[in-house]
Amino acid sequence: MLIVLKPGATEEQRHSLVATAEGDGFRVHPVPDTEHRLIVTGERHVPDPAAFIDRPGVADARRITHGYELASREVHPRDSVVRIGSVPVGGPGFVVIGGPCAVESREQTLTVARQVQAAGAHILRGGAFKPRTSPYSFQGLGEAGLKILAEARERTGLPVITEALDVEQMDVVEEYADAIQIGSRNMHNFPLLKRAGRARKPVMLKRGFAATLEEFLMAAEYILAEGNPNVVLCERGIRAFSDFSRNTLDLSVVPAAKALTHLPIVVDPSHAAGRRDLVAPLARAAAAVGADAIMVEVQDDPSGALCDSTQALAPDAFAALVAEVGRVAGSVDRPLLRLEPRTHRRRQGELSDHHDAVIAAQ
Amino acid sequence: MLIVLKPGATEEQRHSLVATAEGDGFRVHPVPDTEHRLIVTGERHVPDPAAFIDRPGVADARRITHGYELASREVHPRDSVVRIGSVPVGGPGFVVIGGPCAVESREQTLTVARQVQAAGAHILRGGAFKPRTSPYSFQGLGEAGLKILAEARERTGLPVITEALDVEQMDVVEEYADAIQIGSRNMHNFPLLKRAGRARKPVMLKRGFAATLEEFLMAAEYILAEGNPNVVLCERGIRAFSDFSRNTLDLSVVPAAKALTHLPIVVDPSHAAGRRDLVAPLARAAAAVGADAIMVEVQDDPSGALCDSTQALAPDAFAALVAEVGRVAGSVDRPLLRLEPRTHRRRQGELSDHHDAVIAAQ
Amino acid sequence: MLIVLKPGATEEQRHSLVATAEGDGFRVHPVPDTEHRLIVTGERHVPDPAAFIDRPGVADARRITHGYELASREVHPRDSVVRIGSVPVGGPGFVVIGGPCAVESREQTLTVARQVQAAGAHILRGGAFKPRTSPYSFQGLGEAGLKILAEARERTGLPVITEALDVEQMDVVEEYADAIQIGSRNMHNFPLLKRAGRARKPVMLKRGFAATLEEFLMAAEYILAEGNPNVVLCERGIRAFSDFSRNTLDLSVVPAAKALTHLPIVVDPSHAAGRRDLVAPLARAAAAVGADAIMVEVQDDPSGALCDSTQALAPDAFAALVAEVGRVAGSVDRPLLRLEPRTHRRRQGELSDHHDAVIAAQ
Amino acid sequence: MLIVLKPGATEEQRHSLVATAEGDGFRVHPVPDTEHRLIVTGERHVPDPAAFIDRPGVADARRITHGYELASREVHPRDSVVRIGSVPVGGPGFVVIGGPCAVESREQTLTVARQVQAAGAHILRGGAFKPRTSPYSFQGLGEAGLKILAEARERTGLPVITEALDVEQMDVVEEYADAIQIGSRNMHNFPLLKRAGRARKPVMLKRGFAATLEEFLMAAEYILAEGNPNVVLCERGIRAFSDFSRNTLDLSVVPAAKALTHLPIVVDPSHAAGRRDLVAPLARAAAAVGADAIMVEVQDDPSGALCDSTQALAPDAFAALVAEVGRVAGSVDRPLLRLEPRTHRRRQGELSDHHDAVIAAQ
Repeated sequence: MLIVLKPGATEEQRHSLVATAEGDGFRVHPVPDTEHRLIVTGERHVPDPAAFIDRPGVADARRITHGYELASREVHPRDSVVRIGSVPVGGPGFVVIGGPCAVESREQTLTVARQVQAAGAHILRGGAFKPRTSPYSFQGLGEAGLKILAEARERTGLPVITEALDVEQMDVVEEYADAIQIGSRNMHNFPLLKRAGRARKPVMLKRGFAATLEEFLMAAEYILAEGNPNVVLCERGIRAFSDFSRNTLDLSVVPAAKALTHLPIVVDPSHAAGRRDLVAPLARAAAAVGADAIMVEVQDDPSGALCDSTQALAPDAFAALVAEVGRVAGSVDRPLLRLEPRTHRRRQGELSDHHDAVIAAQ
Repeated sequence: MLIVLKPGATEEQRHSLVATAEGDGFRVHPVPDTEHRLIVTGERHVPDPAAFIDRPGVADARRITHGYELASREVHPRDSVVRIGSVPVGGPGFVVIGGPCAVESREQTLTVARQVQAAGAHILRGGAFKPRTSPYSFQGLGEAGLKILAEARERTGLPVITEALDVEQMDVVEEYADAIQIGSRNMHNFPLLKRAGRARKPVMLKRGFAATLEEFLMAAEYILAEGNPNVVLCERGIRAFSDFSRNTLDLSVVPAAKALTHLPIVVDPSHAAGRRDLVAPLARAAAAVGADAIMVEVQDDPSGALCDSTQALAPDAFAALVAEVGRVAGSVDRPLLRLEPRTHRRRQGELSDHHDAVIAAQ
Repeated sequence: MLIVLKPGATEEQRHSLVATAEGDGFRVHPVPDTEHRLIVTGERHVPDPAAFIDRPGVADARRITHGYELASREVHPRDSVVRIGSVPVGGPGFVVIGGPCAVESREQTLTVARQVQAAGAHILRGGAFKPRTSPYSFQGLGEAGLKILAEARERTGLPVITEALDVEQMDVVEEYADAIQIGSRNMHNFPLLKRAGRARKPVMLKRGFAATLEEFLMAAEYILAEGNPNVVLCERGIRAFSDFSRNTLDLSVVPAAKALTHLPIVVDPSHAAGRRDLVAPLARAAAAVGADAIMVEVQDDPSGALCDSTQALAPDAFAALVAEVGRVAGSVDRPLLRLEPRTHRRRQGELSDHHDAVIAAQ
Repeated sequence: MLIVLKPGATEEQRHSLVATAEGDGFRVHPVPDTEHRLIVTGERHVPDPAAFIDRPGVADARRITHGYELASREVHPRDSVVRIGSVPVGGPGFVVIGGPCAVESREQTLTVARQVQAAGAHILRGGAFKPRTSPYSFQGLGEAGLKILAEARERTGLPVITEALDVEQMDVVEEYADAIQIGSRNMHNFPLLKRAGRARKPVMLKRGFAATLEEFLMAAEYILAEGNPNVVLCERGIRAFSDFSRNTLDLSVVPAAKALTHLPIVVDPSHAAGRRDLVAPLARAAAAVGADAIMVEVQDDPSGALCDSTQALAPDAFAALVAEVGRVAGSVDRPLLRLEPRTHRRRQGELSDHHDAVIAAQ
């Protein structure tokens, strides 16, 4: 149920409503960005608007039961902008995230970080904890990998995003990273989603490769319902019968999601395609279809990577991709996010504190 | 098997090779655009290059057995350009095809034809024979519909493309249309493909909604193998589990197909999406991903259409789409196809013969 | 719209209703097996029950618009039994269809026919016209193959079922075969379905590998609506992401279809699995789930077959399968169809006319 | 790498091999059930058989790198039998698991437990922690639910299986349950799999609804590699485009899995179908295809259930299902598991200790 408060509703009226709803066994969620809306939910019973519509301070009360109330545009019509470090995702500038699949060593990571920065990327990605289908594959460097990512941030000024696989890893990932990735295999890991909802950092939630849009939004709702408003969605391909790409990148989900939710949405063409030559065309398409950002795998020496070597781009190919994507993004009035001069100097190595980056063109 | 002839190979040498191959029970297909390549295929036995490599006039002979020899870029490295009427598909200009799902009446068709022309479309689409899931749905006007399309061409100068559902309809469709569409439900209708291979008009082959890329190219090969080199592929969405679009537009197939084949490829976002609001974003994405053309459904009054009313665009929305797609296409160095002044006058109704249209920027 | 006539409705009343409906531009289809029901359909307009409910002789008139009126159990509650030659499919006896993928030669076909007969099969299958993904694969023997099948029937008494790929082949297939197969790639070949609806032989319609149940039933409706009541459905696997079977046999469709339609349903585990070792387990499962028959590929020498060699069973494996399936079918009160002594003698080669076969246990 | 020891290999030789492998940074896993086989795995490097083949006590050393070494039949040819409480899954008797989707109350659970026991079920299922797509749906009773399940076991003698959603819940689930279920949404929750590998109770791993067979077996390998040999697989439907069942039950996976792995496999028709009327036919098919057990949802009053009310069977329908499945299972020489007289008395309420159940017919 959505309760819309009157513009002049008092704190007391508001508290009284919350107390009534909680007294009836319901949960009350304030809608981010506004003092004037409350979501009331119940596990076993659906709250009844009739009990609230005539209360003092209430402008409207109506049933909403699609299961993603806080994520819905119906409740929160304006686009959300989520800041990863100092980089706004979902604002007027198109954002590029790049980096290696896995943090394999300090040298590899710092090298790639400098390369993606030089190519124009805004955020560095890299996996310290890796979800691997086989228990005998490389599982990532763990906390050592996180420290390498933090050093890469220090040297380049790029905020970093990295995956947490489990509730137990969240503390340490939260400590080092600027944003926490929840991978597609964990889109339905509900305890992890709830823990992410209590994190102090933004969360990028990847769509499960067999998830409907409704399931995707409900998974985001798990995070939002715990109090973390900073959720970014990420499309990374669905599983179909394709004989030419690893998964099938479902770009239709971008405008379809935008119609239902205010959350930003990133596209990851690398994991969807699973082959290098499709990445740039799909990245361009992502910009054209209305995504807020792309996330691309980059390797200094793709053929030697410990994971996903068939899809990572070499640094020069990535630089070409950023230029191409920039032209497409510009053609749909969503130019690449431009950083302030101060940031540029930092990108030249003169500055290292990413926290005070100021973003222009926002 | 591919036989590459020496530059100076004589007609006699060539005839002798063909005679040998045919004498052994094989079929010989000249490769379009070149006198110097022959494809030799066998149903029950695979031809052996060793029997040809040392023959006079032969530069190379090698086994190719993927089943789409004539469609393959391996055999025909240059992009093919297919002319529909006077409109080159697969050349440097991006092409827009628009029109109603079905020809419902003369007035409706002429109205929409003028509207899509005014919006900048290059080719008119419209169904006279409709493939309908239910036997009790509107099945199309048949030949009367074809005559209406011909009149629309006469009045606008736009070449027309329309579907043939069966071998028996091919004669009449071939008589009236500038290009013959084979629908996704018929991608594996082999007698129809063979008949299309003997048509004097270009063929646009839509991908079956559960077809792999290899199957798609082999279906095109059926047409090519009968002697018709003018084949255009069309992606229109695959069937997956989506809860928000009718089918899942598989844009990855565009660069993947381009890697394997020289044939042009069109994207149809309307049938894939099945809902109006996704069409423009997907059309932009199609231009960005590297398609040669888009095909979009337009209705003067979408809500009243006898088929597919949820996905057709109103004329003004289509005009906006063409403008947006034009900007995206330009950003990937594939500007919208521009017609010559003479053509423009014709588009104003002063001229009606579309056969002598001259296309600029090619 | 369904019109139910009163038990005592006169011929005159009935004719008057038909005349009214046809005069309004609707089509009238009598429901097979009963004089008391009429289906009225319209392409452009939906007929209105209010105009018929009060007419003399009418017991009920109600709207039915799911698109498979004649196939629906709503209109025809009793199970249909379709006779292929003298073999009833859909009756109390479980039916086994076996034979080679393709008729490759007289000797191969006669040998396999005797083997499947000896193993207990009731119907012989074999392809004379083959739908092949590649134009360069073996396309079947055509009419010569049909003649071989007819000879196999003459010698074994087994009725034969074989595929027609196109309207043009229907005449000759109808002449030689006891039942006409429409393959999954042609499930949406509407002109072929309509032609099959005018055939004098029963039709086995295979589900397209990306067809929903509703589409499957509507495709059957195309045949029924033209006047051929003898339609058998066949599930043969859907296309999904499987890494271990060619397609995914969708056995759930059997009880789901039985709930909606009165038509019999066959399961083809061979094409679904694409590998020999899965065929017998899936055939047993088909019997257990409630199918009316199975269709299995058998080859005298599977490894040498010109098509689908990975899935055909050797004769002894097929015989074991029939015995296993018989036990399972018995356990669900659907024992293998048993032939009369006379038939048994014929199966020993003493008799050859299959037309007078008499089936027991029906 | 698989190392096969000679029959007379000494402990010393064995220790020496393990020391060498571990010294080179590899992990060594003894193969369950045998002292004569070792699996050696490496994350970053693949161990080389040449370094071991000539060592004392070694009969054979060969590379195995499919990623599910311990699960593979290649390494462990005999079928594994996993005991849940006293019930052997994977032995000669077919096993039936039944119970409510969620433990909603003590009364509901005890009632259903008695009903499924009376119907002939061997194991009780019920969810205390529920994975729910929406954060606002009923999430289960938690530990209170586990206590109710333990009481139901005490009263009926049926061992219980229940789901753990997260590493944090494993301790308490392990304490109360006889087997731990890992749900399909968690099939790729690697930390949870690893924790399950250290549990003292058997684990039933449900296939992800977009998981390939290889991924499924690798997920099981995560559990096995941590030292828990008691893993049971469970097929519960894949996500495809079906318009008539919630998911598509993939029965082909049963024989395909049996060819690759020694682990038992259960089929859950309830969650796959999502509708009541398909459950019994699919349960029969599961028995016929070669599954070791079925798991079926039962509710005293299905229409009032807090979750999945459309698919749960009423007790009498479940009893009929067990009888039908018993006949089919018998027809494939896999009769329903029969309990000893003592057990029967306990089933009458005279005995309550399930630990000393003795199972006949094994």
